[in-house]
Amino acid sequence: MEAIVKQCKKACPFLHNSTTASLRKLSRMPAHAGFTSEAGNVRANALTIMAQKCPVMGKAMAVQSKNYLHTSARLAKQPTLPLRQASLVNNENEACVAAAAMLNQFPTIHSTHAKPFDYEALYNSELEKKHQDKSYRYFNNINRLAKQFPRAHTANLQEEVTVWCSNDYLGMGRNPLVIDNMQKTLNKYGAGAGGTRNIAGNCNLHLQLEAELADLHHKPAALVFSSCYVANDATLSTLASKLPGCVIFSDSSNHASMIQGIKHSGAKKMIFKHNDLQDLETKLQLVDIHTPKIIAFESVYSMSGSVGHIEKICDLAKKYGAITFLDEVHAVGMYGPRGGGVAEHLDFDLNARYPHANNGSIVDKVDIISGTLGKAFGVVGGYVAASSALIDMIRSYAPGFIFTTSLPPAIVAGAKASIQYLKESSKEREMQQINTRLLKNRLAQLDIPVVPNPSHIVPVLVGEAETCKIASDQLLREHGIYVQSINYPTVAKGEERLRITPTPGHNEKMADYLVNALETIWRKNGFKRVNDWKNLGGRAGVGTNAPNPKPIWTDSQLRLLSGYGATEIRPPNVHSTAENNPRTIGIATY
Amino acid sequence: MEAIVKQCKKACPFLHNSTTASLRKLSRMPAHAGFTSEAGNVRANALTIMAQKCPVMGKAMAVQSKNYLHTSARLAKQPTLPLRQASLVNNENEACVAAAAMLNQFPTIHSTHAKPFDYEALYNSELEKKHQDKSYRYFNNINRLAKQFPRAHTANLQEEVTVWCSNDYLGMGRNPLVIDNMQKTLNKYGAGAGGTRNIAGNCNLHLQLEAELADLHHKPAALVFSSCYVANDATLSTLASKLPGCVIFSDSSNHASMIQGIKHSGAKKMIFKHNDLQDLETKLQLVDIHTPKIIAFESVYSMSGSVGHIEKICDLAKKYGAITFLDEVHAVGMYGPRGGGVAEHLDFDLNARYPHANNGSIVDKVDIISGTLGKAFGVVGGYVAASSALIDMIRSYAPGFIFTTSLPPAIVAGAKASIQYLKESSKEREMQQINTRLLKNRLAQLDIPVVPNPSHIVPVLVGEAETCKIASDQLLREHGIYVQSINYPTVAKGEERLRITPTPGHNEKMADYLVNALETIWRKNGFKRVNDWKNLGGRAGVGTNAPNPKPIWTDSQLRLLSGYGATEIRPPNVHSTAENNPRTIGIATY
Repeated sequence: MEAIVKQCKKACPFLHNSTTASLRKLSRMPAHAGFTSEAGNVRANALTIMAQKCPVMGKAMAVQSKNYLHTSARLAKQPTLPLRQASLVNNENEACVAAAAMLNQFPTIHSTHAKPFDYEALYNSELEKKHQDKSYRYFNNINRLAKQFPRAHTANLQEEVTVWCSNDYLGMGRNPLVIDNMQKTLNKYGAGAGGTRNIAGNCNLHLQLEAELADLHHKPAALVFSSCYVANDATLSTLASKLPGCVIFSDSSNHASMIQGIKHSGAKKMIFKHNDLQDLETKLQLVDIHTPKIIAFESVYSMSGSVGHIEKICDLAKKYGAITFLDEVHAVGMYGPRGGGVAEHLDFDLNARYPHANNGSIVDKVDIISGTLGKAFGVVGGYVAASSALIDMIRSYAPGFIFTTSLPPAIVAGAKASIQYLKESSKEREMQQINTRLLKNRLAQLDIPVVPNPSHIVPVLVGEAETCKIASDQLLREHGIYVQSINYPTVAKGEERLRITPTPGHNEKMADYLVNALETIWRKNGFKRVNDWKNLGGRAGVGTNAPNPKPIWTDSQLRLLSGYGATEIRPPNVHSTAENNPRTIGIATY
Repeated sequence: MEAIVKQCKKACPFLHNSTTASLRKLSRMPAHAGFTSEAGNVRANALTIMAQKCPVMGKAMAVQSKNYLHTSARLAKQPTLPLRQASLVNNENEACVAAAAMLNQFPTIHSTHAKPFDYEALYNSELEKKHQDKSYRYFNNINRLAKQFPRAHTANLQEEVTVWCSNDYLGMGRNPLVIDNMQKTLNKYGAGAGGTRNIAGNCNLHLQLEAELADLHHKPAALVFSSCYVANDATLSTLASKLPGCVIFSDSSNHASMIQGIKHSGAKKMIFKHNDLQDLETKLQLVDIHTPKIIAFESVYSMSGSVGHIEKICDLAKKYGAITFLDEVHAVGMYGPRGGGVAEHLDFDLNARYPHANNGSIVDKVDIISGTLGKAFGVVGGYVAASSALIDMIRSYAPGFIFTTSLPPAIVAGAKASIQYLKESSKEREMQQINTRLLKNRLAQLDIPVVPNPSHIVPVLVGEAETCKIASDQLLREHGIYVQSINYPTVAKGEERLRITPTPGHNEKMADYLVNALETIWRKNGFKRVNDWKNLGGRAGVGTNAPNPKPIWTDSQLRLLSGYGATEIRPPNVHSTAENNPRTIGIATY
């Protein structure tokens, strides 16, 4: 049977020219007056009738039909070729799959001898693909210890490691104020919300958190979701499906949650090259000014640390009648005088002095900001902030918001405490930035390749899936350091990396130890250095001649004395908490 | 301009015969050699060239073009008709919208005078629709007090009400064991998970919870998600998109999360009538046995309390080569000897004695079970349990699982404690069932209409959106009782209801008070009684001649002495906790 299918693929002029959709349509069309079935005793459709005219298929089908009708016992031993098998053999060729489906579909009578689809085999074959391309994921067992942040124990309670890849960027997950608020709320309001926001799951705390978030982003309103994945998915899909004929302009590096939201909206999507304003403008020009448009992009792209051109994109949006959807997931708590994100950071002094809506700062130009409560804020959940009418429309129409249990009061209380704290305290984000600079400089001195970027992410390029996992495993097993390998589909194939995220809790000793471990691993495995990538023409921004981007946090914002280089800065002691670290004025207090 | 558009709609033979898709395609097609533009100085496409040939459109366009090219000042006063305006005027007629688009598209040069789409007006118009059909939702501010369960305070801290509509069915959200576990875990592991399951967000507790859930449902594996909305959406969309040519058979009353998952999968959907096995089988027969199929349904349908035919649907699945996806969201913790749901309940004694996989019980026949940690288990989160290969495939491919921060360790610890507790303790679910029977009987005596069902839900039929909200508001304001009104789209229009959910924490006094309040409201507003619905031919199962369904929990499972009627049962005292209530043997201990 496989031979016939293969033969079809090569030789058949009909399959060659027909789309799978046409074949499917034919298969659903009953045989009408124009067709006569040569096998009147089985259910016929337009496709089977046409296939009977074919010298190859007709023959095969005649044999099958004979077998089926006259020798059911024999048929049980020689069942028709299941579609799955055919598709596994030739899964790259759509026309061929259609040919197999055509064979498979004939006869369509349900027989107790017929074998149903083999589901388990399909699951295993999908898993096998992951093993084959080395993208199968083995989760590490990491138990982050609040009191020894950033330390964790592994599956073995006695085995401790240092975590260098968590998104609890500022250690707020162990902040005593956050934990204390959560514990009190647990006692008072219990473990869960007990319902959706509409049915018994809407309490004071939810409303207070949303007011806090709206204020953080200088917007009139905000709405909280189970996660920012859900916030992005639900908001983009609902909004774009409501805007008639909407076209979404999406940065090519956008997060999966936005991609899903755009897909689920059913709206037309135009992908522009990552951070390429020229390409975005060219695409905007293709769509009429009256057509509703959304430009969806991020402030900090989490895997490369690159930063979106917020102001210029907002200007383009205004010029072409679009609205902007800005994902600040990796920036909230981390940038801006109050932790409002990169949009707030761009007018740092103005927003520090007048932290209110309509102060003329860039954040006013952004229509919708999405953020998370689960990274720098240290808890869990997501949200969007925007105009009152937009938020109310999403609240009223988005199934992902309406039909789900709301976040537990204790989670909401923890997130609220964290946001309030970080609006006032800047030392955590400043220390995080200083530690990031330190680490980037140390790695640069050793020629260990870091994808250049202006943010707090330290992506160490390895450039190959299997090797990257080896590096991660060696760090964990031989050095007690946990940095997860980031492979496809999270990053492009060939751009696999170790994504390192310094925190204010990492001290100098830890940084030394990490840098030495990386150097050992690079030497031992002969991994590529910056120069090697340069010789290969560069990869993911490493080894190109482009100048290093300037950090978002400037020296003066970090209050670094002009005479000191970043490498001289000593990070805080490991056991220090946010509470007993003095306010950082320059480097002198470390 | 509107007159021209209207004229096109009636008279134009071209628009009459062309689909909007064809017109859009033409509008994107450049004018090729076969077309010549009469206005060479503006951008032309195949649609505009064709339109120029039309005696009506050609004329209109010539006037516009002249205005545009020679009198830009005049144009600013007479802008081209925005698409939105045209579509609002004629939004029912696609061809007409296309005509407007055609007009609007010419000229396509971006002018600083052109008005962009009015986004805020659209948001407001979408909200106005909700106000018009009375489906706009006003969230009540309800703060459930753990120590006074099922009491809550409103926005006013001093104003206390009794909650009769929470999905914290068993009061596990205030269970001291659950809260204690959460507080200890908060102290040890902090507020948040700090990453996705793949990157720093996978700890012992996640693995233990999944093992607990797999065991609960007699399956080899389970996977935890942010919510069961996400679990259903991510699992169904990923699974059905992986199964080649998959057809999903979906119960017409399925929850929004399943509907979204099915939609997002892109698979073909066949909706069968709610709980109608005949209709399901007829539809299954239409699809070839080799084609992969999923039958998606629920055990307890939350708004009506009806119960799916689990065993018979599994038998049909086997017969037609389908797999089953069973949503047990409103049943886990509530049914079965260990709280495994209705599937476990169906072989109560067998599963009580041999609570393990492959004991020959019906639960073995179900392929995939989804459940929540946020209702009877009292916390938050969702999951699916199934074969190891299926779970591993979802874990490896579902974006909604992969790209989101995992549940905080404290949440996971709370859920785990709750499941373990309810595996051992049956008294909470038994007391819940007894209180449900009591309430249903009391309401029946007063002829207050309850949608008949065999489960723990007490849906009191009102049958009109505005009236239903009035009933809910009067209960809250005049009687201090909180029962949310359930309106469209959660239930069908005309089937609006007060959905009451008794818990083991509601005492006899509270039940009396509720029943009296309902009677007062029914009398005061002249609401329909069972007899009124009967005279109208019945509604939502009320006032029909169908016999009342037998409760899932039988008298003997509830250990009720045969001589006692359910109305004689006294519910537990309000201040009792799970801890100080004695094990219920018959009714004597109440």
